Amino acid sequence: MARTSTPALAVAAVACAAVGVVPVLAGHAEDEASAVFGVRMPAGYRNWQLISVAHEAGSLNDLRAVLGNDVAAKAFREGITPFPDGAIIARLAWRHEPSAGNNAAFGRTQSFVAGAPTNVQFSVKDSSRYPGTGGWGFGQFEGGRPNRDEALLGTCFPCHSQAPGTADFVFTRYAP
Amino acid sequence: MARTSTPALAVAAVACAAVGVVPVLAGHAEDEASAVFGVRMPAGYRNWQLISVAHEAGSLNDLRAVLGNDVAAKAFREGITPFPDGAIIARLAWRHEPSAGNNAAFGRTQSFVAGAPTNVQFSVKDSSRYPGTGGWGFGQFEGGRPNRDEALLGTCFPCHSQAPGTADFVFTRYAP
Repeated sequence: MARTSTPALAVAAVACAAVGVVPVLAGHAEDEASAVFGVRMPAGYRNWQLISVAHEAGSLNDLRAVLGNDVAAKAFREGITPFPDGAIIARLAWRHEPSAGNNAAFGRTQSFVAGAPTNVQFSVKDSSRYPGTGGWGFGQFEGGRPNRDEALLGTCFPCHSQAPGTADFVFTRYAP
Repeated sequence: MARTSTPALAVAAVACAAVGVVPVLAGHAEDEASAVFGVRMPAGYRNWQLISVAHEAGSLNDLRAVLGNDVAAKAFREGITPFPDGAIIARLAWRHEPSAGNNAAFGRTQSFVAGAPTNVQFSVKDSSRYPGTGGWGFGQFEGGRPNRDEALLGTCFPCHSQAPGTADFVFTRYAP
């Protein structure tokens, strides 16, 4: 499986996580799926189990949560890779927003909370459907609508290819 | 119900969220409960639904996730206050740790992930058991062990009293 770490791809990886890069097409049934991999938004993903949290500073400026469906969550908890078929990982993100109320309660300017949601990304493990990308299909959604930009979705796998070889293309680790 | 915003209590609130302020007693059955409110660690809380995430900078320097049991999560999602009896809110926190691997993939120094866990706090709604503190009991645990410091646990309610009057002493809002 290809590994790459060129600066060009690293920049593309940043673009992959950016917000609202292109207009979203909607209104047709076939447009419910995100570009390239045909990933659709899984029902009920918001109530999946928490895997971990993260903070991207800089231009992304967001707080993130990674959730997993039951198959993914079990694999994360038990440290099993490669992830079995059926595993779906959801990455939610919100603006990294100062909280005036929390700062007042703490008596210090230190508190940041989840602001407006930015986008939601999914990694779907299906080794039959996605043999050329490590068994993973990727999708991105803004405001519930699929991102249909093929160039953008094309950056997902090159970026995930930079995860450690034992991690099955997944950056996130389970936070106890 | 008392509301307060004195600097002294704000400082105390910071102490309430600090890590390892006092040694933990353990080894006796009665020591399974955290001080003052007798809150015990609820089974299975790590798999509860995600309510929101947060970042405390400064001396706390952590990333946080707030989870809710089914009763609490429903109330959060539907914006129902006061929270019904049986609601339990869990606040997990981990060190705000730079990720060299993520930074390499992004090509920028911007990525922070969950490091070592610090402490876990619970807010338990039981209006019969906790009539003097808005119906809430509070608990704190480090490494699975209850914090038994009465002074520390005594700061929880004064701090939560600074939440907006309509929020039922809860700072966190549901992140969509």
